[in-house]
Amino acid sequence: MFVKNAWYCAGWDYEFTQSKDSLVTRKIANERVVLYRRLDGVLVAFEDRCPHRQAALSLGRKEGDSLRCMYHGMRFGPDGTCNEIPGQSRIPDRACVRAFPVIEKDNWVWVWMGDPVKADPALIPFAVGPSEPEWNIKTSKMHVKTNYRNEIANLSDLSHITWIHENTVGGSRKYTEVSPEFELIPRGMKTRYWVRSCAAPGAARHLFAPDALFDIHFDICHTIPCTWILHYRLFTAGTATEGESNGQLILDTWSSQAVTPRDEDSVDYYFSWGASRATDFPGGSDMLKEAVVIAFQEDAVQLEAQHIRQKEKPDFQQIDIPLDAGPGKMLWVLDRLLRQEATEQISLSQ
Amino acid sequence: MFVKNAWYCAGWDYEFTQSKDSLVTRKIANERVVLYRRLDGVLVAFEDRCPHRQAALSLGRKEGDSLRCMYHGMRFGPDGTCNEIPGQSRIPDRACVRAFPVIEKDNWVWVWMGDPVKADPALIPFAVGPSEPEWNIKTSKMHVKTNYRNEIANLSDLSHITWIHENTVGGSRKYTEVSPEFELIPRGMKTRYWVRSCAAPGAARHLFAPDALFDIHFDICHTIPCTWILHYRLFTAGTATEGESNGQLILDTWSSQAVTPRDEDSVDYYFSWGASRATDFPGGSDMLKEAVVIAFQEDAVQLEAQHIRQKEKPDFQQIDIPLDAGPGKMLWVLDRLLRQEATEQISLSQ
Amino acid sequence: MFVKNAWYCAGWDYEFTQSKDSLVTRKIANERVVLYRRLDGVLVAFEDRCPHRQAALSLGRKEGDSLRCMYHGMRFGPDGTCNEIPGQSRIPDRACVRAFPVIEKDNWVWVWMGDPVKADPALIPFAVGPSEPEWNIKTSKMHVKTNYRNEIANLSDLSHITWIHENTVGGSRKYTEVSPEFELIPRGMKTRYWVRSCAAPGAARHLFAPDALFDIHFDICHTIPCTWILHYRLFTAGTATEGESNGQLILDTWSSQAVTPRDEDSVDYYFSWGASRATDFPGGSDMLKEAVVIAFQEDAVQLEAQHIRQKEKPDFQQIDIPLDAGPGKMLWVLDRLLRQEATEQISLSQ
Repeated sequence: MFVKNAWYCAGWDYEFTQSKDSLVTRKIANERVVLYRRLDGVLVAFEDRCPHRQAALSLGRKEGDSLRCMYHGMRFGPDGTCNEIPGQSRIPDRACVRAFPVIEKDNWVWVWMGDPVKADPALIPFAVGPSEPEWNIKTSKMHVKTNYRNEIANLSDLSHITWIHENTVGGSRKYTEVSPEFELIPRGMKTRYWVRSCAAPGAARHLFAPDALFDIHFDICHTIPCTWILHYRLFTAGTATEGESNGQLILDTWSSQAVTPRDEDSVDYYFSWGASRATDFPGGSDMLKEAVVIAFQEDAVQLEAQHIRQKEKPDFQQIDIPLDAGPGKMLWVLDRLLRQEATEQISLSQ
Repeated sequence: MFVKNAWYCAGWDYEFTQSKDSLVTRKIANERVVLYRRLDGVLVAFEDRCPHRQAALSLGRKEGDSLRCMYHGMRFGPDGTCNEIPGQSRIPDRACVRAFPVIEKDNWVWVWMGDPVKADPALIPFAVGPSEPEWNIKTSKMHVKTNYRNEIANLSDLSHITWIHENTVGGSRKYTEVSPEFELIPRGMKTRYWVRSCAAPGAARHLFAPDALFDIHFDICHTIPCTWILHYRLFTAGTATEGESNGQLILDTWSSQAVTPRDEDSVDYYFSWGASRATDFPGGSDMLKEAVVIAFQEDAVQLEAQHIRQKEKPDFQQIDIPLDAGPGKMLWVLDRLLRQEATEQISLSQ
Repeated sequence: MFVKNAWYCAGWDYEFTQSKDSLVTRKIANERVVLYRRLDGVLVAFEDRCPHRQAALSLGRKEGDSLRCMYHGMRFGPDGTCNEIPGQSRIPDRACVRAFPVIEKDNWVWVWMGDPVKADPALIPFAVGPSEPEWNIKTSKMHVKTNYRNEIANLSDLSHITWIHENTVGGSRKYTEVSPEFELIPRGMKTRYWVRSCAAPGAARHLFAPDALFDIHFDICHTIPCTWILHYRLFTAGTATEGESNGQLILDTWSSQAVTPRDEDSVDYYFSWGASRATDFPGGSDMLKEAVVIAFQEDAVQLEAQHIRQKEKPDFQQIDIPLDAGPGKMLWVLDRLLRQEATEQISLSQ
């Protein structure tokens, strides 16, 4: 089950080059999508399926702004309408390929999988991309064989960084003792909290004295289907027990993360991390990015094992604990959107 | 869905050797088949499934003209009847393995998958095999993960050689502008047409002047389940606009192709190409065979992607175009045979 | 379909080390199991599935006698009850993981997959393990992609060693001519018989004169789900035609074999073979073990091919022969236990 009327991240803008042969194929929410740039650089997104006999358009050829299916030669303009059928002059109205709204923003490419009329660019979530001049953002991507609900739950409760990520981006029991401030927003949730007098994250511990302590602030904007933008600030531990830390800000960072379901069994994960130019140090942002790459491999092992087990016992009576507050809220937001779309579908068909 | 009362190609005769250990296993139209040669060289084809406990007879041992299952030792004569059961003297009538009619013709091995009573050798399609003395025929084989209907459609409309095979066996837009002459035959279709003043096929273009043009004649006999015999003649371009070319015949060739479905998801493809001894030149027939090997790899990429997409959207509303005339006719012939067999089955069971 | 109230072999005791990181994961009768040793060495077996969100406990961490799930940090004592939930002080009663009774005996580890109240240690079958001082037992293990019923049938009729194992543990037609004495026991069957004046097993033939003959006695205890203990004695051929051989005992051996179904499609096979210290010779027990390793690979090829064919034709009308007496009895014992458990389930749910 996927929300259709939503922007899904299709990758980093640099993956979609202007080159003559650059056709990128993706699977997004169970639909196959092929993307390419027009001569003016604007991106086009089609269903990767020729309307004639379902041939793969991603095996086709760019011709100017058009895309030719290389099976029987039908050619489609950037709006999806056919502009040539070899062997005939008349082109039937139905001979068009489904075109998806596509927008580039903050170095990400976004595709709208639902009704094009509802494709409101204002719904594209805020992010901090690698071209932001004030930030030294490093990017990566990964494929994980789990249902995207597990990724949403994983990102909605960071207490797990105590355990899974003890040697990378977490490692202190302090992360399990926080009191997050949740704020529901139209398609998601904001989460803010302090972790005070905490050891450095595992991957950075060698940079500091063994007993060095820090105040860390997490400020997260999490939206459906799954975009997760983190403003992460690291201070030397201060004496304040509430409100802003009175320690020294030593690292000011942004991590932007987008999880795009391919289907019910796997996701593509596009993510970045990096420090402000003011607080970065040589190798600093690369270290952050490497830490998150390893951390996401740590997550992948667990989320893939979890997915296998969930498929084996779909009716397993699981127990809930207080740490499920964040995941519960985000999955409630997701399920509400899914129900809403299902209801609209029923209304439309009556 | 497969036509049962049909001859299916099980491979090239040289794949079935006389050697003591030569047991060849195939999957044909969802049935497992094991083949071996009797002492006199005649081929035997059994269901590759012991009637005792479904052990694989292809893991068995040839003993004279018999085949012994090497699990519990039951031995079957070339007609499929059991002639030894270790540990007992009485052999029940039911202790026999299903034997399929099998015939060698034109260097191909043919197996009849339906009622043996209906196995008429006259139904085996005409082909030009590598042992034809007047022709220098080269052979190959390939496995493709697509439904065999896609192969039938692919072979019934050669306009696709303009696009998929632009660098091998096609490449000119002329192939999309032909007016084939179709002739329905009892289990298939003959197709004949001229392509006039056409560039050389991609793989042969280096042999001629860049602006050299040719008249090409295609004469195809296509039968169900999927045998496709092509008489292909290449002339220097003449001035005739209808009827036989008045150019010079420079290459006279036959290509014989048999597509055998393993199951709904894949096929074995046995094929050949070669020139007449009169028009061949050093390396000529090898060049033809290599071109078709690469061309079929080009097809396989597209037909496998198409098959994946068809399974994702079995109810996809596809659009039809005039180029579908050939595929439409051949699939109509196939579907008529399938319906006919289904009806016979119902009559038999009443 | 699996018998739940039964001891299943989870492996050789040496596979479960005391080391800090030693968590062993198994799939037994469709359930995922994780095993580890307490500080005192006693084994613990849990369902490998955290009751919170189905995370893999086998990706967790041993902490003293407890096991911590490394996703959200829940920690479980060796009886399966939760003794810590990070972020909260109250621990709900339901927060426990399923614990399976587990016992070590004869160097094998046994897990009870059913109602713990019924886990009677007396039901663990007799075996001769590698720590028996009077025997030089060598061990191994293997994974086979077949349904465990095929393994039960395979082990219940050794006539197949004439054919499949002609070069390893069998090879004479004499094995098909035996008259086994069957004795049903509560959860299985004992089988005893002599093979007289028989060639040496294939793998040992090079040790003797080409025409050397032997009397071999098989004494087998076979129990459900699938444990198979063989006392195998090799004598020089004597003149006795019934009762104990009057030849010379030259090799006195035990082979213990346990087949544990992972699921309906595969099994783990734990096995050993070895001679008495009195009759062993340099390299003798290693030769036996190597022979059985190769023999089980020979079986695996056939049992995997058979399993594929059975799934293709689940309703295949197979024929029965007298050699099926042993398999028939053992599968009857299995099916009776399965029916009995199904009936108990229905009674419980009324």
